Amino acid sequence: MDRIYVIATGGTIEKVYSEQTGTVQNVDSKIERYFRMLRLPEAEIEVTHLMNKDSLEMTDADRESVLATVREKFGMAPAPIVITHGTDTMVETGLLLQKNLPELPYPIILTGAMTPLGFEGSDGLQNLTESLLAARVLPAGIYVVMHNQVFPVDRVRKDRELARFVWK
Amino acid sequence: MDRIYVIATGGTIEKVYSEQTGTVQNVDSKIERYFRMLRLPEAEIEVTHLMNKDSLEMTDADRESVLATVREKFGMAPAPIVITHGTDTMVETGLLLQKNLPELPYPIILTGAMTPLGFEGSDGLQNLTESLLAARVLPAGIYVVMHNQVFPVDRVRKDRELARFVWK
Amino acid sequence: MDRIYVIATGGTIEKVYSEQTGTVQNVDSKIERYFRMLRLPEAEIEVTHLMNKDSLEMTDADRESVLATVREKFGMAPAPIVITHGTDTMVETGLLLQKNLPELPYPIILTGAMTPLGFEGSDGLQNLTESLLAARVLPAGIYVVMHNQVFPVDRVRKDRELARFVWK
Amino acid sequence: MDRIYVIATGGTIEKVYSEQTGTVQNVDSKIERYFRMLRLPEAEIEVTHLMNKDSLEMTDADRESVLATVREKFGMAPAPIVITHGTDTMVETGLLLQKNLPELPYPIILTGAMTPLGFEGSDGLQNLTESLLAARVLPAGIYVVMHNQVFPVDRVRKDRELARFVWK
Repeated sequence: MDRIYVIATGGTIEKVYSEQTGTVQNVDSKIERYFRMLRLPEAEIEVTHLMNKDSLEMTDADRESVLATVREKFGMAPAPIVITHGTDTMVETGLLLQKNLPELPYPIILTGAMTPLGFEGSDGLQNLTESLLAARVLPAGIYVVMHNQVFPVDRVRKDRELARFVWK
Repeated sequence: MDRIYVIATGGTIEKVYSEQTGTVQNVDSKIERYFRMLRLPEAEIEVTHLMNKDSLEMTDADRESVLATVREKFGMAPAPIVITHGTDTMVETGLLLQKNLPELPYPIILTGAMTPLGFEGSDGLQNLTESLLAARVLPAGIYVVMHNQVFPVDRVRKDRELARFVWK
Repeated sequence: MDRIYVIATGGTIEKVYSEQTGTVQNVDSKIERYFRMLRLPEAEIEVTHLMNKDSLEMTDADRESVLATVREKFGMAPAPIVITHGTDTMVETGLLLQKNLPELPYPIILTGAMTPLGFEGSDGLQNLTESLLAARVLPAGIYVVMHNQVFPVDRVRKDRELARFVWK
Repeated sequence: MDRIYVIATGGTIEKVYSEQTGTVQNVDSKIERYFRMLRLPEAEIEVTHLMNKDSLEMTDADRESVLATVREKFGMAPAPIVITHGTDTMVETGLLLQKNLPELPYPIILTGAMTPLGFEGSDGLQNLTESLLAARVLPAGIYVVMHNQVFPVDRVRKDRELARFVWK
């Protein structure tokens, strides 16, 4: 069994529809429900629910807490890390990690979704599937993985109009 | 082939998630995409896209236009009618129809959804399926049909907290 | 709460795909998993797993056992009954019930599917949804309910080529 | 845009349920319908429908034709190749490719499914998603990619009882 850490921070991928308010919100984490739809016979997925925020509302302290969690995982029993994150500031968090973690024992994959998991046309399960595979095969480094694309974190930006990431 | 008229007015059942704004909105009608998931070999579904509104934003003129459309359908080639509608003012529209249509040749079924069609846990396709069957078998009258329940329109109210309709 | 009895006998609707043999079989009942996808706030569904057979393999004794179960339900606490059944001999079982139950306190709905529940393009959940509604609103009688159609059991036959039921 | 060739040969992943016979069969290719569920903005997927066979029925000539197709793709405009294939003889085909293609310009990914695409619990879309990502990031070589696992083709065997591939 190969361990993969998942650090869940919220973002669109985990948003749920509220029947009371008619809006989508970050309330309860639902990511593990979707992991159960995948076959992962040799992967030991260890999920940390760090926070559940729209990434536009993440503070500096929130990003520091992501960094601290990555340090803790790499300190104890190093293994690849997948971070689920809102797309709007995913790159910002990734660059903070890059600046503070000059040497990495394993890859860190940032991923998320444009449409919440389980909504029609969602890219969430595709991105989770890709990220869990990327975690296994990519060399150490910090990446954004979504939509069949793999970007080093310092080479990528979100294109809001296209609703996806592009090279910068 | 037996005709069933569907008059689509919007409401949660037709809401879509916008990747640009991160909100759910009434933009394009998607109801016909879901009819295609059903087997309706002897039903000739004729859809009228009357409007696409959150029912809290429907005006008196909007409700009059629903009434006019029902009159037109019953005037030309009478057949059962299913009206898809936001749940918040579904009963109000139904009562207007009741007041103005003392004699009905066929049943009128009001339906909608608490969660949009195609979102995880949606009740939309269930309610459409039930309403199309109710349209075939109920006697003339005006009903709310959702969640395996059939309410005469003057006996029902929405319970917001329970997120469903209850007897009144 | 209104009770609805469900008597599950197997048929295509409950078939599952076996990864070991590459075939579809009647092994475990899965119907209750699909009931949980429906919102049935006022329905108390009581499921009896009577057998799990392809209806071409049902014997006279099997059909007698369906009859005995119906008698038992109607004898104790009468309520509408939905029977899930293979489509090939659904009508045969229905006619046996009709012959032996001249007076019915509630409707009996026979339903099934052309494609198993959960397979792409399945009509299973549609037929269950329709049957549970039909159980509430139809007068006493024995019916086949599938594909937005309601047939009295002595007026229907399966058309294998069309993969549906038609009037006879 | 980066090209990825897909060579479809059939196998469980493409099987469909026949309502007439009640069996699952390799009849029509359905793989492209599932590609459309994925977001692949920078991938130009070019699908070759080579055959549609249960891999237990593949002949030597069939395997030679897979080899010839790979040679043709690599000869004209080399790009990564994903081969969808029945799992029972997937390794056999992979080893034939390995023996005959000592130098590869790009990776060749063999994938398939234990349960057909679109059947409940199917691993098909997961495996396609993983294979399309693996095609982008793996070094030249011949691999089996399924269930979050990446096996060099000479290190893998199917475990029928576990319904998955394991290291050999």
